[in-house]
Amino acid sequence: MAGRNHLYIPGPTNVPNEVLNAMHVPMEDHRSPVFPKLFAPLLEDLKKVFGTTTGQAFIFPATGTAGWEVTLTNVLNPGDKVLIYRFGQFAHLWANMATRLGFEVELHEEVWGKGVPLDKLEARLKEDTHHEIKAVLATHNETSTGVTSDIAGMRKAMDAAKHPAFLFVDGVSSIASIEFKMDEWGVDSIISGSQKGFMLPAGGAFLAFSQKALKAVETSTYPRCFLDLKDQITNNATGYTPYTPNLPILYGLRKSLDLLFAEGLDNVYARHFRLGEGVRRAVAAWGLTTCAHDGFHSSTVTAVVVPADKDAREVIGAAFNRYNISLGGGLSEVMGKVFRIGHMGDMNDVSMLGAIAGAEMAMLDCGFDIKAGSGVGAAIEYYRSTAAK
Amino acid sequence: MAGRNHLYIPGPTNVPNEVLNAMHVPMEDHRSPVFPKLFAPLLEDLKKVFGTTTGQAFIFPATGTAGWEVTLTNVLNPGDKVLIYRFGQFAHLWANMATRLGFEVELHEEVWGKGVPLDKLEARLKEDTHHEIKAVLATHNETSTGVTSDIAGMRKAMDAAKHPAFLFVDGVSSIASIEFKMDEWGVDSIISGSQKGFMLPAGGAFLAFSQKALKAVETSTYPRCFLDLKDQITNNATGYTPYTPNLPILYGLRKSLDLLFAEGLDNVYARHFRLGEGVRRAVAAWGLTTCAHDGFHSSTVTAVVVPADKDAREVIGAAFNRYNISLGGGLSEVMGKVFRIGHMGDMNDVSMLGAIAGAEMAMLDCGFDIKAGSGVGAAIEYYRSTAAK
Amino acid sequence: MAGRNHLYIPGPTNVPNEVLNAMHVPMEDHRSPVFPKLFAPLLEDLKKVFGTTTGQAFIFPATGTAGWEVTLTNVLNPGDKVLIYRFGQFAHLWANMATRLGFEVELHEEVWGKGVPLDKLEARLKEDTHHEIKAVLATHNETSTGVTSDIAGMRKAMDAAKHPAFLFVDGVSSIASIEFKMDEWGVDSIISGSQKGFMLPAGGAFLAFSQKALKAVETSTYPRCFLDLKDQITNNATGYTPYTPNLPILYGLRKSLDLLFAEGLDNVYARHFRLGEGVRRAVAAWGLTTCAHDGFHSSTVTAVVVPADKDAREVIGAAFNRYNISLGGGLSEVMGKVFRIGHMGDMNDVSMLGAIAGAEMAMLDCGFDIKAGSGVGAAIEYYRSTAAK
Amino acid sequence: MAGRNHLYIPGPTNVPNEVLNAMHVPMEDHRSPVFPKLFAPLLEDLKKVFGTTTGQAFIFPATGTAGWEVTLTNVLNPGDKVLIYRFGQFAHLWANMATRLGFEVELHEEVWGKGVPLDKLEARLKEDTHHEIKAVLATHNETSTGVTSDIAGMRKAMDAAKHPAFLFVDGVSSIASIEFKMDEWGVDSIISGSQKGFMLPAGGAFLAFSQKALKAVETSTYPRCFLDLKDQITNNATGYTPYTPNLPILYGLRKSLDLLFAEGLDNVYARHFRLGEGVRRAVAAWGLTTCAHDGFHSSTVTAVVVPADKDAREVIGAAFNRYNISLGGGLSEVMGKVFRIGHMGDMNDVSMLGAIAGAEMAMLDCGFDIKAGSGVGAAIEYYRSTAAK
Repeated sequence: MAGRNHLYIPGPTNVPNEVLNAMHVPMEDHRSPVFPKLFAPLLEDLKKVFGTTTGQAFIFPATGTAGWEVTLTNVLNPGDKVLIYRFGQFAHLWANMATRLGFEVELHEEVWGKGVPLDKLEARLKEDTHHEIKAVLATHNETSTGVTSDIAGMRKAMDAAKHPAFLFVDGVSSIASIEFKMDEWGVDSIISGSQKGFMLPAGGAFLAFSQKALKAVETSTYPRCFLDLKDQITNNATGYTPYTPNLPILYGLRKSLDLLFAEGLDNVYARHFRLGEGVRRAVAAWGLTTCAHDGFHSSTVTAVVVPADKDAREVIGAAFNRYNISLGGGLSEVMGKVFRIGHMGDMNDVSMLGAIAGAEMAMLDCGFDIKAGSGVGAAIEYYRSTAAK
Repeated sequence: MAGRNHLYIPGPTNVPNEVLNAMHVPMEDHRSPVFPKLFAPLLEDLKKVFGTTTGQAFIFPATGTAGWEVTLTNVLNPGDKVLIYRFGQFAHLWANMATRLGFEVELHEEVWGKGVPLDKLEARLKEDTHHEIKAVLATHNETSTGVTSDIAGMRKAMDAAKHPAFLFVDGVSSIASIEFKMDEWGVDSIISGSQKGFMLPAGGAFLAFSQKALKAVETSTYPRCFLDLKDQITNNATGYTPYTPNLPILYGLRKSLDLLFAEGLDNVYARHFRLGEGVRRAVAAWGLTTCAHDGFHSSTVTAVVVPADKDAREVIGAAFNRYNISLGGGLSEVMGKVFRIGHMGDMNDVSMLGAIAGAEMAMLDCGFDIKAGSGVGAAIEYYRSTAAK
Repeated sequence: MAGRNHLYIPGPTNVPNEVLNAMHVPMEDHRSPVFPKLFAPLLEDLKKVFGTTTGQAFIFPATGTAGWEVTLTNVLNPGDKVLIYRFGQFAHLWANMATRLGFEVELHEEVWGKGVPLDKLEARLKEDTHHEIKAVLATHNETSTGVTSDIAGMRKAMDAAKHPAFLFVDGVSSIASIEFKMDEWGVDSIISGSQKGFMLPAGGAFLAFSQKALKAVETSTYPRCFLDLKDQITNNATGYTPYTPNLPILYGLRKSLDLLFAEGLDNVYARHFRLGEGVRRAVAAWGLTTCAHDGFHSSTVTAVVVPADKDAREVIGAAFNRYNISLGGGLSEVMGKVFRIGHMGDMNDVSMLGAIAGAEMAMLDCGFDIKAGSGVGAAIEYYRSTAAK
Repeated sequence: MAGRNHLYIPGPTNVPNEVLNAMHVPMEDHRSPVFPKLFAPLLEDLKKVFGTTTGQAFIFPATGTAGWEVTLTNVLNPGDKVLIYRFGQFAHLWANMATRLGFEVELHEEVWGKGVPLDKLEARLKEDTHHEIKAVLATHNETSTGVTSDIAGMRKAMDAAKHPAFLFVDGVSSIASIEFKMDEWGVDSIISGSQKGFMLPAGGAFLAFSQKALKAVETSTYPRCFLDLKDQITNNATGYTPYTPNLPILYGLRKSLDLLFAEGLDNVYARHFRLGEGVRRAVAAWGLTTCAHDGFHSSTVTAVVVPADKDAREVIGAAFNRYNISLGGGLSEVMGKVFRIGHMGDMNDVSMLGAIAGAEMAMLDCGFDIKAGSGVGAAIEYYRSTAAK
């Protein structure tokens, strides 16, 4: 189909051309004396994005899924009990992984559209007087529903319960797009991936661990090798990696971090919120609702609920097949009920107006009762009123 | 500014990533035995785009401006008289070049917004009973006003006048976007450039000449060297070039032609018309007019006339500075009076909806009395109703 | 330092520019209806490189190290006994991984410079009448010593012993460079990585499993998730992946496979042998020896033994710092004793002559008693006498 | 053929990957307010490479051939007399151009292998008491013979003759590789192209003119348009170009200049001399001679004279067809008599050793009486003894 594909799925996000160029590098000896000049600063700079000065950052040549596993198998011991609230597909998958890896998973069902229930969390932890729960797992930004949880609130709840559990956070679709304060929020492990806010292809799992977590790594008996933090720790100490690194991901990350810092992380976060708010104005103008309840709206992705008599998959199909625009589908429990518009990464106002206009075309094709241009108009008014002068 | 620049100027147009990749090549010996395997088919394939089987195509490592000069200095003789109607900046510039190069230029002023006046042309040629006019120059698509002239009609007029003048056509912003039939229309030289419908950077002048014109080249006494067709003819005969070719432009052209042929030239032309019509619907919905009069609308660029109390330059400035969208400015006589939206090259529906939405934002910022979303809505309705099922 | 770095380490190998270009792609929806058109053929084509029609191929967004773990944890059960001969650093590392993952490792020390001892293997398996050994692990090409083992011979030994153990082969530095016949040799798992013969950056683990191994996967109780074959099997069945794929690696692999098939796998193997033989002729001309004993020479890498009074690290340092050429260092037990010249991947005669010349310069700088040009001369004579006419 | 092509022709030279990446840019509006931030510094930085502070630099979207024409048609008037010594193909071509453009060319034949004869020049200018000679044309580095002329000496000769003629210099294959001091040497026009020392593809003609020459431009009556300096002067004054620029060439030039300045121009010149000297040592070791006589050796290209019973074209053919190495052919009067090894641009020691080794293979294939490794050995000794510690 002529013209570029317009990509608005919530990851992989659009990779800026200059990042793709930065990845277009000749290979080099990852054991050379100059390699650490590339690698060591990446680990330091990742810490800034995670909001930590006391923690330690890591890069695995793998994906965010691997990142989840790194955290579970390095910090915990076989059979440890973890607590998780399920309110979306990625919370579900992480819980499922923990079960498959032999951990005891205490799973609580929550509304798909809300985040971690702070009151329930606090109450549950207070009940756990023997501290059987070793870790609380949270999806910072639930990509399937467009919901952001309050991690600072979780820390408060855990402190209120005086519970020593680790706090593990999946920040795959939030890091580098939504503010994250690892140290301030007392997060023990934060997991992210290359293909979201970092505007890279998939292939890099970026994590950070608190000193408390790292201490646990030393004694963890969970069998592991490829994803063993200890090998990373040993090799990273001199600026190297335990096995051949994915050089394009590293060089791309260098450029990505340069871009993020040049814009300023606070500006990056504000931009994501603003772009997301424009999309929400459009949804309201269409007379539709978001999957996310008030107070839980994500800055990186909006899940739009379609009327009960419609199938969101048809919207996505029309968008892709007729207009070369890629929207995100509903996953699992919300399959067919929502379509998703990603507003993450290398985006600006006109990008989002294209997404909204494309969604309008597809919805109209599917017989939605909306007015052509209504969503775009609402977004335009919002973007205009909030644009830098 | 975050996010990509949204480029809607009428050239250079957006270069598809696969074309940029095709240009990312190691250098090679342009005198090697394998070079002709790249070069010779390019010349043959260009002929398909120009609509000629009897003519001969050429590639100069220069720009469309050089293409104009190639035509004038190779086919004509010093002091020859040429006829041209001025109805835009590029007609003006070509006429100006002819004057500077020492040709006698008979220039007729026409309305900026219309094309070549067929009746006047026929009448003037009939008057020229001594055939003092050696060539008629026409801008097929006047980029400054968004006007397309009727070249088939010019041929009819010239035939009706039984006038033997050469017909030289500037197709820089039409070729590969708007149908062109060099043989059928009896065109003696067609000039195009890489940076428009061919979706390449500037740096290639692509031309074709009729046999009648080529015969004149043999005897032309105009002094020339870098732009001499004879050197090309001699070297091209064996698949080579008279001086070092711009290899990235050649490899990019190979990919560009492959893309155009894969889509089908007729589909390419239909797509450009359709995208342009959507923009025109938006202009009408805004309550504005186009610079082009009815019957002269270009499929590659639309010049939007702003109200008398507005300055189009402010619209373009707001678009660029606040929204990272590049619109085309008004040139010369229409400076400040129009802004231009290019719909040429690697574009599709969502691309154009982004352009229209961006223009709406900029116009609203400049106090235009338009409704946010109105233009986008009109274009959406048109695109939807005409999209492939 | 001016000029390109000349890379002759045994991986990552030089990535051809056209492969890097193929990786320079916009992101896309890996859940779209067109994604399987890219992905499914890759799995089929990998089988050709592995030499299997009955097995099944897999792609993990990880490295060869992960590939080792995939094999161990998916086919075996916790505590299973594996047999491995250690004759180099990569055999060592795989054995070490097996131990760390809780398998019982029966490790036999062998000479660094020879491969798997077929006689001993057969004898040991015959002794194992209770079939306590569940798998035999072999490094097809031991990168640290430049040694290639005889996998067909291993199969014969296993068959002679009538032993049902699985045969797992690390082909990271052999696949796509040295002939491999998975089906014919009765291999149950073959593991390779993107950054060697496939001429890609690290980041892809490419494997294939026999039906016998796949059957064992169904019942294996080893806890695993990111590296679980079952998730791959389920998702691959419809052309998709269980988590976000590394798109550049996939697109690069497409191009890499196209290049390999265009040259012809047999020609690729012959080229590697021939390039390696030229290097060996140079080593002999220098009066030095290779780490590999006769009959074990690798076609992808040559480890050159330095005189007892020399430190190979100084040679590598001089090569890198003075001449911008990267040679491979000695690992572990042969550290300082050998330097390695990779002749794997995107290489030809002149590439290797550059490597040999560069090594000569570095050795001369370190006071080696060799004659400048001697190794190059010997290689030239060999390459000339064997070049295609 | 497998492996990369090894390119040693004297232009186009190898383009560093980072320059190719810098050229891989989205198009942009060349009339935007930010374009001058790219363009204006390029013109200033080119002056540093030309060695001028008082002159003015220009960029044309064309080739070095166009650069010759720019100089002749902008500074001179129709019919003006120029003096040129012919000692190679490029001197020949420039003289031929001048003739074709209607200038009066006084051509003196010189030995192909020597440069401009300073004594003869001085004597001839002294004879020209009426100053009929308006310009002296010189090829600084004659690419066809590997000869560098003494431009400082020409200035001395002209001063000694007290002759006011312009001094025009073709520096296409010297600039950015061999020292050039425009101001100090009193050069009125220096012409270079992108595809040599600037390590870019062809497509950019880079020039500088003295104030004396620019004054003449104002009054020159030679008809010209595409190559008119006045349009450049007018537009460059505000940071713009008279017609659409070749953006990739501009962005590539930015990177190229950054690389040159980072290395240091003096280091660049020294590197070229040193690489060339190594090649000459190899030629001597082969028992052959260079086309260039002593005192005229070029730092950018060496033309190797083959024995009388050999045809250099066969060497070049064998090199290309059997070993994928591109050597330069002999042009015109030295066709078949020499082959050329370029040592210009992105080269270092190992690059040149590959070239020498490849040439040895090809010569041996053609029955040359040379010893394999002899040339490489001689070059190795030279490079080692002169390498940075």
